[in-house]
Amino acid sequence: MKLYEKGPAPSARRVSLFMAEKGIEIPRVDVDIRGGENISDAFKAISVTGRIPALELDDGTTLCESIAICRYLDVAFPTDHALFGDSAVTIGQVEMWNRIAELQGLFTAFQAFRNLTGIYNDRERCVDAWGEESKQRVIEFLPLMENRLAQSPYLAGDRFSVADITAYVMCGFIKNMDIHIDESLPSILAWQQKLSKRPAFIAVQAS
Amino acid sequence: MKLYEKGPAPSARRVSLFMAEKGIEIPRVDVDIRGGENISDAFKAISVTGRIPALELDDGTTLCESIAICRYLDVAFPTDHALFGDSAVTIGQVEMWNRIAELQGLFTAFQAFRNLTGIYNDRERCVDAWGEESKQRVIEFLPLMENRLAQSPYLAGDRFSVADITAYVMCGFIKNMDIHIDESLPSILAWQQKLSKRPAFIAVQAS
Repeated sequence: MKLYEKGPAPSARRVSLFMAEKGIEIPRVDVDIRGGENISDAFKAISVTGRIPALELDDGTTLCESIAICRYLDVAFPTDHALFGDSAVTIGQVEMWNRIAELQGLFTAFQAFRNLTGIYNDRERCVDAWGEESKQRVIEFLPLMENRLAQSPYLAGDRFSVADITAYVMCGFIKNMDIHIDESLPSILAWQQKLSKRPAFIAVQAS
Repeated sequence: MKLYEKGPAPSARRVSLFMAEKGIEIPRVDVDIRGGENISDAFKAISVTGRIPALELDDGTTLCESIAICRYLDVAFPTDHALFGDSAVTIGQVEMWNRIAELQGLFTAFQAFRNLTGIYNDRERCVDAWGEESKQRVIEFLPLMENRLAQSPYLAGDRFSVADITAYVMCGFIKNMDIHIDESLPSILAWQQKLSKRPAFIAVQAS
């Protein structure tokens, strides 16, 4: 099995944190995204979207999309540590909060960053006004997250889950756009500090 | 249990098709989205994002996000019909193709539609140029889907899955932007015709 990724990229980071939490180790292959290695035909044979991370199984089967890789690993390497929930209700709640953190948080932040910086304008058309709008939407999303974390120890409820990984990666990524979690968002700040002390988070941070 | 929705809205349609495939029936409550009922404080107590569909359980627990509702129902009403996959690999493949159909297809189409029409400009700022760009990205995504369906009977592999529901709803929704699945996309067309003959699809179509 091989994991194609790019170390500090936020999507690769989600999978790294998930694997560290589950205690899974897989050989990694670095992909030169800025240089466009990921949009080559050779890489698209591994990742149909041309995006990282991508997982190649020993029989040649390939998977892309961070959460699809996490779900595969979750079933292939079963542990007691259920990061996707372990009952109908918690499975629903984890999916719900992971999606809220993605759709209103992380993916909106990606759209802001890509459209504002034009970092991939060799391969995509950018709309600056949408970058500005997306940045504004991320800022407006944070109070919803603050409100949730004021009432709940973790995003999806009483237990740490993949939704916390997504939201944590988002909180780190938005610094690139000068959005910072500060004292005006005390519950997010406390939650962020709590997560950063988890052994898996310390290990990935150091890697 | 109660499902808050709006019949023909694409997100409500995904849950309706999923429930029809699984043979699940739940009382439904119509929500007036155009009139803004969904962004009222009363509705936000049920759906934290203010979006439909939302599910209210008998103990008062609530879930929003279409796929979170589907995942809850999938576990709460177990059947032999595994729409999210039934092994590590198929679970990963369904998640991967469902996300590709969402991120590059359905959600991109939502951004196109909302920004181009300004249908919700009483509650969100629109960027026309992003609407145009998103529409173009949907058009450019279709060949990837065509290519996949030329090689695979269903989007995620040999078996029908929730990824087919997402992609089917997307193919219907894009007609609103004058994007049509025609003879230039023969594999999508054949797949669409095959799905439309499934009893669940006939039932939801007629409802």
